[in-house]
Amino acid sequence: MKKNEIPKETVNRLPIYLRCLNRLLLKGHSSISSDELAKLVSMSPAKIRKDLSYFGKFGTRGVGYGVKQLIERIREILNLDKNWNLALVGVGNVGSALLAHPGFNRGCFKFELVFDDDQEIVGKEISGKKVYDSSEISRLVGDGSIQIGIIAVPNEKAHAVAEALIRGGVTGIINFAPVSLHVNDSVKVYQIDITTELSRLTYHMRS
Amino acid sequence: MKKNEIPKETVNRLPIYLRCLNRLLLKGHSSISSDELAKLVSMSPAKIRKDLSYFGKFGTRGVGYGVKQLIERIREILNLDKNWNLALVGVGNVGSALLAHPGFNRGCFKFELVFDDDQEIVGKEISGKKVYDSSEISRLVGDGSIQIGIIAVPNEKAHAVAEALIRGGVTGIINFAPVSLHVNDSVKVYQIDITTELSRLTYHMRS
Repeated sequence: MKKNEIPKETVNRLPIYLRCLNRLLLKGHSSISSDELAKLVSMSPAKIRKDLSYFGKFGTRGVGYGVKQLIERIREILNLDKNWNLALVGVGNVGSALLAHPGFNRGCFKFELVFDDDQEIVGKEISGKKVYDSSEISRLVGDGSIQIGIIAVPNEKAHAVAEALIRGGVTGIINFAPVSLHVNDSVKVYQIDITTELSRLTYHMRS
Repeated sequence: MKKNEIPKETVNRLPIYLRCLNRLLLKGHSSISSDELAKLVSMSPAKIRKDLSYFGKFGTRGVGYGVKQLIERIREILNLDKNWNLALVGVGNVGSALLAHPGFNRGCFKFELVFDDDQEIVGKEISGKKVYDSSEISRLVGDGSIQIGIIAVPNEKAHAVAEALIRGGVTGIINFAPVSLHVNDSVKVYQIDITTELSRLTYHMRS
């Protein structure tokens, strides 16, 4: 099965399986059944079997899936078997929280460059990372080592930052500013916005 | 059309339309065509027309949609026409960023209670909010005024916090800890995890 034949919803669930499987591996588990995995991620076993069936025969009846093999296969599908260098723009509250996040700088995601336009912090180190001036984004990102930009600046600055990152060669963006970015189709943008998630949550709640 | 007949993907896009429409209203726009809205949110006009068709006839051929009416209808569908009181648990990097987020404490989402188990900050005020001891969660949340809990604690504490919030009567949770919560079906959980979003992003990128 080719990557682009995997349904979007399945792709969206893969990181959740992966997180769970990594934890299992740490605990010394070598195999897991779809029923057990389903319980751990609070999903139905049928859905998990369907999802995993999209990328080959891994399960052995009565034994389950090899944890390590499944991790490797999911990492390969999600392109997590290589290193990704990130540029963070904006070291306010959100940016600082990201720099301190335990999920970075181990594994495949690493903050390589950090920018802000606040001259009070430019040149200083935050969480061990030197902060560069935002006017340098496209020049410094442009050496080709950065593939992903993380935008954590106020709304009104988000577009200019996105353009500078893209000029520097970034092809993927995570945008924390609650504004839709207009970029060409070759750049993939994901947005993380707490109030958007809250609105999706309240839709399902009894008001 | 009943709420539960609206496709999940459409529901997920409604907060994005809403954010854009609110901005248009602020700028003084009274109507918008699906083509214009599509451009602003970087989606296809056909998809937007399809999405909006699920909740009634709003568009007028040649005139477009009334911005104010559309906002009201989407807010109603997402249950944003009432106030939601939130409890935040964990005032570390992520929690502090949330307390300072401009999307709260105006509009319909308000942090009503804030908890942490760090005795250094319990009793103090952070961003104008008094921090209570996490051991008080179910008692204080239990007065019935809090519907949503935001979990921003380390992984190993997330489950106990979720249980305390649910004992207090919370029926919706946004979980920032990168761990799957096991709750009963009457509680809706959304998870926000930067490394999950990054993995979804890298799937689409050329490695």
